[in-house]
Amino acid sequence: MGARTVSDQGITTRAADFSAWYNDVIMRAELADYSPVKGCMVIRPWGYRIWELMQRALDDMFKATGHENAYFPLFIPQSFLAKEAEHVEGFAPQTAVVTHGGGQELEEPLVVRPTSETIIYAMLGKWIQSYRDLPVRLNQWCNIVRWEMRTRLFLRTTEFLWQEGHTAHATAEEAEAEARLILGLYRRFVEEWMAMPVITGKKTEAEKFAGAVRTYAIEAMMQDNRALQAGTSHNLGQNFAKAFEVKYQTAAGGLDYVWSTSWGVSTRLIGGLIMTHSDDKGLICPPRLAPLQVVIVPIWKTDAERGGVLAAAQRVRQDLLSAGISAQVDDREGMKPGAKYYHWEARGVPVRLELGPRDLAQGQLVLARRTGGKGPVAAGDVVAAVRGAMDELQRGLLESARTRREQNSIRNLKGKAALIEYFKGAGGFAYAGYCGDAACETAIKEETKATIRALPDEEFRTSPAPATCVWCGRPAVTEAVWAKAY
Amino acid sequence: MGARTVSDQGITTRAADFSAWYNDVIMRAELADYSPVKGCMVIRPWGYRIWELMQRALDDMFKATGHENAYFPLFIPQSFLAKEAEHVEGFAPQTAVVTHGGGQELEEPLVVRPTSETIIYAMLGKWIQSYRDLPVRLNQWCNIVRWEMRTRLFLRTTEFLWQEGHTAHATAEEAEAEARLILGLYRRFVEEWMAMPVITGKKTEAEKFAGAVRTYAIEAMMQDNRALQAGTSHNLGQNFAKAFEVKYQTAAGGLDYVWSTSWGVSTRLIGGLIMTHSDDKGLICPPRLAPLQVVIVPIWKTDAERGGVLAAAQRVRQDLLSAGISAQVDDREGMKPGAKYYHWEARGVPVRLELGPRDLAQGQLVLARRTGGKGPVAAGDVVAAVRGAMDELQRGLLESARTRREQNSIRNLKGKAALIEYFKGAGGFAYAGYCGDAACETAIKEETKATIRALPDEEFRTSPAPATCVWCGRPAVTEAVWAKAY
Repeated sequence: MGARTVSDQGITTRAADFSAWYNDVIMRAELADYSPVKGCMVIRPWGYRIWELMQRALDDMFKATGHENAYFPLFIPQSFLAKEAEHVEGFAPQTAVVTHGGGQELEEPLVVRPTSETIIYAMLGKWIQSYRDLPVRLNQWCNIVRWEMRTRLFLRTTEFLWQEGHTAHATAEEAEAEARLILGLYRRFVEEWMAMPVITGKKTEAEKFAGAVRTYAIEAMMQDNRALQAGTSHNLGQNFAKAFEVKYQTAAGGLDYVWSTSWGVSTRLIGGLIMTHSDDKGLICPPRLAPLQVVIVPIWKTDAERGGVLAAAQRVRQDLLSAGISAQVDDREGMKPGAKYYHWEARGVPVRLELGPRDLAQGQLVLARRTGGKGPVAAGDVVAAVRGAMDELQRGLLESARTRREQNSIRNLKGKAALIEYFKGAGGFAYAGYCGDAACETAIKEETKATIRALPDEEFRTSPAPATCVWCGRPAVTEAVWAKAY
Repeated sequence: MGARTVSDQGITTRAADFSAWYNDVIMRAELADYSPVKGCMVIRPWGYRIWELMQRALDDMFKATGHENAYFPLFIPQSFLAKEAEHVEGFAPQTAVVTHGGGQELEEPLVVRPTSETIIYAMLGKWIQSYRDLPVRLNQWCNIVRWEMRTRLFLRTTEFLWQEGHTAHATAEEAEAEARLILGLYRRFVEEWMAMPVITGKKTEAEKFAGAVRTYAIEAMMQDNRALQAGTSHNLGQNFAKAFEVKYQTAAGGLDYVWSTSWGVSTRLIGGLIMTHSDDKGLICPPRLAPLQVVIVPIWKTDAERGGVLAAAQRVRQDLLSAGISAQVDDREGMKPGAKYYHWEARGVPVRLELGPRDLAQGQLVLARRTGGKGPVAAGDVVAAVRGAMDELQRGLLESARTRREQNSIRNLKGKAALIEYFKGAGGFAYAGYCGDAACETAIKEETKATIRALPDEEFRTSPAPATCVWCGRPAVTEAVWAKAY
């Protein structure tokens, strides 16, 4: 039996071409569009609403943990980038450079920020004098530019939106605690809001942030078994403090460099949300981040029916709105109910309520879930039923994504051949022993295209721990998770 | 008697040097700071919090009137800017230009957006096919770059933050109604939230937006009697639709260009807020936009007193938070209460509650208003008292700003000499007849440095209307408001 390559909704199926499916879902749901500017996308209202809901949830979490928002300049003098050696090496090749302003050539070119450590540390040096000024916990919501050769909507674009947190502390321990605090907070956000399960862990030297002592990350598995790095939290040690001379007077009267962190998540998360949950009908959006949670589709044939059905639909909408649930009545004329169902399914609306004259007469509505299954609900129970359906969907999406990830993970892979074989097939997350030698990491990447996504935190580690390196057979110093990644 | 040039708080007085006062207030309140990037500022947490509160209020208003947020690219191909003749003439001299990306010279330079009409219209042409797709009502929160020679914190910076609304409609009437709707909404926001009274009206040809058919604006008067243009709303007619070929199929089956508007307010509003209300002690912030509404200063001498006073202060804070009022306890050690008062006064906290052992024993607190006046409040009444004080302050600030504006306005100025004399003195808003000839407008600007801020809306016009042009004496076709402006 030949699998279909295009769904009834006109969307390329995942089985046929995962990458084309991803683009089709975005286009059909009107989440984003290509712009005439190479590598830059337009985030359309439906996609931007998801970002707004993400921002609100994250921002509340940041504020609840003592962080304050601020705003630093878009432009960074080229010389600033050069002050931290690893940092400039990592970012300089990716920058967009302003050479002219107000019709004049600039004395020093300005880089459009690829990240803001350098400009922020230039300011912290001015603001921090003593231990009384610490900790400083800043966050910034802004746009970022990194010149990319191959771009993909949301996942990798020349310009993207993100938040970047930057904190400075009096001790190494506090900085480490902050980096871990944020990692936990990111995990909580992606799991509880995005219903996207992640593993947490540390990056290897090869994969860490340019300028960090240590990078932590959350890694999710997409439906094509590839990994998506969904957020990173860096312990920067005193690297930037030294590069920018950010010193403070200690309580004991001495002088020391501050210890710092930085961390960020971006509009890439929207790509992760799409690839975690959606199907061949279009977007599936967890209710907590849905641009619209409920669509009410009134059904009528005669004008006499129309008035009563529409009035009832509006009443239901008001009840839902009063309960804090976003809802809309699709009362477009000249469009069949089936076409409306397709329209809202493609856009990922979690719950649909159908309401026809017969339902009205019987005091009921039909409740349909985006993920399948429908049935009647008494009009008086509709708010509770919708809430129940949404809670179930929110939980169910996380649950199935976790099950899928576990089914597509392998542990205790023994030896080079098995690893190569695994990544020749469907792939997934391969947990195995690692000797810690970068040469093995490089060789595996060249041979399989898989990279070490994380040295996983204890909760995710295999027990008993693998004893030998999957590649060279020498004793393992740690366990690692390999995957092909976005 | 010589006026003081510096206040007890170390702030240059308004009387001594208004411009230095303005900078001192910003620095002392830690609203913003100069950055090492020419013309670009850093918005510090205290200032950014005001911006966040402004954003929340405006965004709610936009959404309630059917607007959706989206995000368009930062970069605009240079050729796009050239498509609308007046537009390019107005903005090209101010642009920052990216000539290199990813280490390569670009084929076509990219302009960092000075405003987004051009990139947005390039997309609307793709999205709009028929009258069913109209109206389109988009808004974007983003950063903007306009190369400036002389910059001032918040008021005029090379990079600033703003919102820009862009709408497309099927008829000229709808576009005009939208431009007016937004003007009214801006007015409501600045008056009800910022407590900053404005006059509304139309701009002359010389002062309108480059590319607009008609520009409306809200104009406020600062404490130095200068005008601040606080927001603009443009009816763009079909200018951009024609430049970017944005056509739609009409209900009748024909083909027509869409009619459009754009409108924006920026972080400049924060400058307006500061210059409308603040005094020589520092910032005065309307309670609805205050980063912190209440500071509680506990007072103690002995350790025995300390515990009780602090616990009571925290209880009061909890009561205020539960009532939706932001509140903080200043429990810093080794700092005298008076120093704390100065600190929070400079930062514009509307209400201070003092709580010492004697107050505690008497079951009371002392409530002090930022604008003066203090007295005891029974502990049980504190929430109501704070709310009352804030309401009064919010109303009072608007009232005094309005009174000040009226006292510094003049109507029925007769003739050239009187106008010149007026602007040689303290100046203000001069309402007078205008013949409509741009030559008079130019001559007045050259002679007095005053410009036409608005052809005022009916509500603000003088009755009976002035009969002759204040400059040339010919019959007036309209009334105009002149002022020196920021």
